[in-house]
Amino acid sequence: MAEESKSSLDALSALCKRRGFIYHSSEIYGGMPGFWDYGPLGCELKANVKQAWWQFTVRGREDVAGLDATIIMHPKIWKASGHLDTFADPMTMCKDCKKLMRADQVKDIYADQKKKPQPKVAGSDFFCPYCGGELTEPKPFNLMFKTVVGPIDDPSNVAYLRPETAQAIFAQFLNVTATSRMAVPYGIAQMGKSFRNEVTPRNYTFRSREFEQMELEFFIRPDEAVELQYGHVVTLADNPDLNGPVQDDWGWEVWHKYWVEQRKKFLNAVGLPTEKFVEYWQKPDELAHYARACVDIEYDFPFGRQELEGIAARSDFDLSQHQLHSKVPQTVFDDPLKQACKKLTDDDKAAFIAKTQAEWLDWKQKAASAKAGKEVVFSDEEKADIAAKAKVFCENLFDGKYVPHVIEPSAGVDRLMLALLCEAYEEQKLTDEKGKEDIRTVLHFNPKVAPVKVAIFPLIKKDEAQYKLARDIFTKLQKKVNCQWDVSGAIGRRYRRQDEAGTPWCITVDEQSTKDGTFTVRERDSMEQRRMSYGEFLAMMYEALEF
Amino acid sequence: MAEESKSSLDALSALCKRRGFIYHSSEIYGGMPGFWDYGPLGCELKANVKQAWWQFTVRGREDVAGLDATIIMHPKIWKASGHLDTFADPMTMCKDCKKLMRADQVKDIYADQKKKPQPKVAGSDFFCPYCGGELTEPKPFNLMFKTVVGPIDDPSNVAYLRPETAQAIFAQFLNVTATSRMAVPYGIAQMGKSFRNEVTPRNYTFRSREFEQMELEFFIRPDEAVELQYGHVVTLADNPDLNGPVQDDWGWEVWHKYWVEQRKKFLNAVGLPTEKFVEYWQKPDELAHYARACVDIEYDFPFGRQELEGIAARSDFDLSQHQLHSKVPQTVFDDPLKQACKKLTDDDKAAFIAKTQAEWLDWKQKAASAKAGKEVVFSDEEKADIAAKAKVFCENLFDGKYVPHVIEPSAGVDRLMLALLCEAYEEQKLTDEKGKEDIRTVLHFNPKVAPVKVAIFPLIKKDEAQYKLARDIFTKLQKKVNCQWDVSGAIGRRYRRQDEAGTPWCITVDEQSTKDGTFTVRERDSMEQRRMSYGEFLAMMYEALEF
Repeated sequence: MAEESKSSLDALSALCKRRGFIYHSSEIYGGMPGFWDYGPLGCELKANVKQAWWQFTVRGREDVAGLDATIIMHPKIWKASGHLDTFADPMTMCKDCKKLMRADQVKDIYADQKKKPQPKVAGSDFFCPYCGGELTEPKPFNLMFKTVVGPIDDPSNVAYLRPETAQAIFAQFLNVTATSRMAVPYGIAQMGKSFRNEVTPRNYTFRSREFEQMELEFFIRPDEAVELQYGHVVTLADNPDLNGPVQDDWGWEVWHKYWVEQRKKFLNAVGLPTEKFVEYWQKPDELAHYARACVDIEYDFPFGRQELEGIAARSDFDLSQHQLHSKVPQTVFDDPLKQACKKLTDDDKAAFIAKTQAEWLDWKQKAASAKAGKEVVFSDEEKADIAAKAKVFCENLFDGKYVPHVIEPSAGVDRLMLALLCEAYEEQKLTDEKGKEDIRTVLHFNPKVAPVKVAIFPLIKKDEAQYKLARDIFTKLQKKVNCQWDVSGAIGRRYRRQDEAGTPWCITVDEQSTKDGTFTVRERDSMEQRRMSYGEFLAMMYEALEF
Repeated sequence: MAEESKSSLDALSALCKRRGFIYHSSEIYGGMPGFWDYGPLGCELKANVKQAWWQFTVRGREDVAGLDATIIMHPKIWKASGHLDTFADPMTMCKDCKKLMRADQVKDIYADQKKKPQPKVAGSDFFCPYCGGELTEPKPFNLMFKTVVGPIDDPSNVAYLRPETAQAIFAQFLNVTATSRMAVPYGIAQMGKSFRNEVTPRNYTFRSREFEQMELEFFIRPDEAVELQYGHVVTLADNPDLNGPVQDDWGWEVWHKYWVEQRKKFLNAVGLPTEKFVEYWQKPDELAHYARACVDIEYDFPFGRQELEGIAARSDFDLSQHQLHSKVPQTVFDDPLKQACKKLTDDDKAAFIAKTQAEWLDWKQKAASAKAGKEVVFSDEEKADIAAKAKVFCENLFDGKYVPHVIEPSAGVDRLMLALLCEAYEEQKLTDEKGKEDIRTVLHFNPKVAPVKVAIFPLIKKDEAQYKLARDIFTKLQKKVNCQWDVSGAIGRRYRRQDEAGTPWCITVDEQSTKDGTFTVRERDSMEQRRMSYGEFLAMMYEALEF
């Protein structure tokens, strides 16, 4: 990390501690690495970020339903999702100094050492980066926290703390579909805690062992179903309007891009300017085998460019896995599709099957080739298997049945909060009329996420009329938004106190207020003051807070 | 459970499943006993209950700060709190049929059996209620879920999922006090998940293994500090006004009663009428050894009268325990107290110490006697110990230092939701003008917690002007509150659909609307319709939603 970036993160984390945004968990007991608590201002910021996401993603739309599922779920869910078998880091231990480390980080640790040890076993290129000792064979270490449910401590009762919120959405897909009066294309959203037993939690709150996610699984028709129903599939080549209403004839590629754009709009709306983040489109060889595309939205943190959130096109992988493991069909019935297919002749159907078989083969061979880094040609047996699966898939489509595909925008609350804090933080050099220099520490939060929306002060607290009027305004506003009352010190000091908390507006009640009811509103970023009536202020505030 | 109550709970849980309030967790995998998920309407209800509590308890006050701490904390916290040693149920197993059960429930299970087995060991009165077999010696089973943090599975890395949110507040008391600009008397509030490995989870969502709490720890001065500073301590005998502003000279008894009244106000505000709950004041022999008083607020659930929440006066027990175990002093410095004590002569101080010693001895002997059920007289050694501790305590007070006492109002989100659902649920018999009978299923939620606030319908969806105006109103309202749009079926059916979801208001746009912009607002409970302008509706709605 560059010195300057490190010092800006240090200054930010010092402010976060001092003003009650973020504390170490269990600090009086020496702390817990990878666990962080949010103090009075931090928990308001967090609640606002989550509420903003919920408003933007769920309440503000008609095609997304909410879910709030448990953290401990049936362990078979993690077998089906693949987490039980593959959600692991390779671990190794030095046989001499007994240090434990990630096998894939051995070379990085070695590179960071000032005194570089020589391997104790001559010629070895996998040795302890601390002492040169022999390392054990790397063993996978699963990142899920384990626990036991019920009174009998037995392997059959082992369960896991969820490492992501997404799987609960798949597990409840049928229930939500049956009870929400929504039909594909539609989404299910969830926010909540997730847990990963990171070997090396780091970068302040960025990579923690306990964190909170905001995930959406947006279920769509397979492209083949769109084609059967509408006679065509809209792709990005058709240059669709992604800012207008969503369209039923969009293919997965358009839906995926639509959600990338939606997520960027959200990040803008809560205070991250577009120029501060980068879209990273994963390359074919980086994609998971079932994924069609994946975009990471990355932000320049003081400790480097890091993923803020991801938007993945995951095909029907997740629901199909749960169908396989639960033996409960995860198909939906799409009557308009069935009606459309009734018009097809047997020849039409045969042609559609043949076309689908060719497309699947082509896509799977290309994906396998990209992964292998050389051209892969499937065996006849493999080809026959793909053709058989494509045929069953098409026949189900003709009956109006399919397992929905999914687009998954997945965001972390804590890393978004950290990005918002980094973005908002400024130590501003000011010079007053007399040329005196001063530093103003300010958090330029967007009002939508600012922990405190308004602070209210009487200019002279001993002036009874001013005090009473200010209290009245405070009492009224406190029923609407989070407010602070402050009578201590000069007005300038009260402003600075609010600047550090990121409060967008300060209301000062002065002598004129007691005559005409107006007050000054001091705006945090410009530091300008405007005189307003209560009604004018309310209208201005509500406009700034609304999506 | 009475048949009628059981059937009303069955009808409610069927509605909860059908309309997407509550599902079994991991249902497609056979479910997880004691774990429940909230569907689209359930998670909105839950979010509203939590937001209402937060507004009432934190944002709407000036003397409470928020906290959002981790679920996994340092294990020493649970040693200090006593959970590690005593948060356990006694378990026993039948040596014959291998059934596991709580030793304290053996007699109840036996009483419930139709065929009552005889003890296999003649004369035994502790035998298996299922087969009469011999039972193992009861062993304590700790209800905390265990896990391991970090890659090394070693007893030193064992941690626990918190069984309550309260302890995080005590562990962060110093940080919050240092950074929130608040001073005792003041409170810290937290909402969040807690986990208890219940042996027998039961009564729908009432006793779950994963649940959510809303807890406040309100820190107050010890009565002795109040007396030194103000020369008197207000007690309930003084008949203080509990509805006005809080007062600095209140003793613990008044603070405790104040919070009982506040909690009742909150329950009223979210929709539980006062006559539907009972205050149960714990008797001296039921109190924990450190507790001064504890009130349970109980509600008549269909499965019996059960605790909804508790308000406990816990003395300085919790902070003192953390002081002992963390070795970090949990005292606050109270300058006004120190200044007041400077005026005391040495004789005044000696008299105060003697009085405090006598009071402590009296209180502790009375508490011990109540617990023992007979008069307990302490030994000289015990008396000397109490006198020595009281002296140190007083001397600290003279320096302005003390460990705050605490009043703890502790509520469960899930059980409050269940009470609100039970209270709201009605199958209403209606008779139309023609004498035809009909049943209307309705959830009479208070608008503050209702999952959907407004539903908007065009009367005739094919009427373009009506449709467009209704959409405009929907789009505007959707930015403010959770709304639903419905165009399917006759208006009467759309109303009924919203009744089942508990939506307080339905807006219908008709022909007149397209002329003058007014619309009809159908009120859920009275089923009356009133014509209103948009502005009138907004004002009415905001008034109903505000605390």
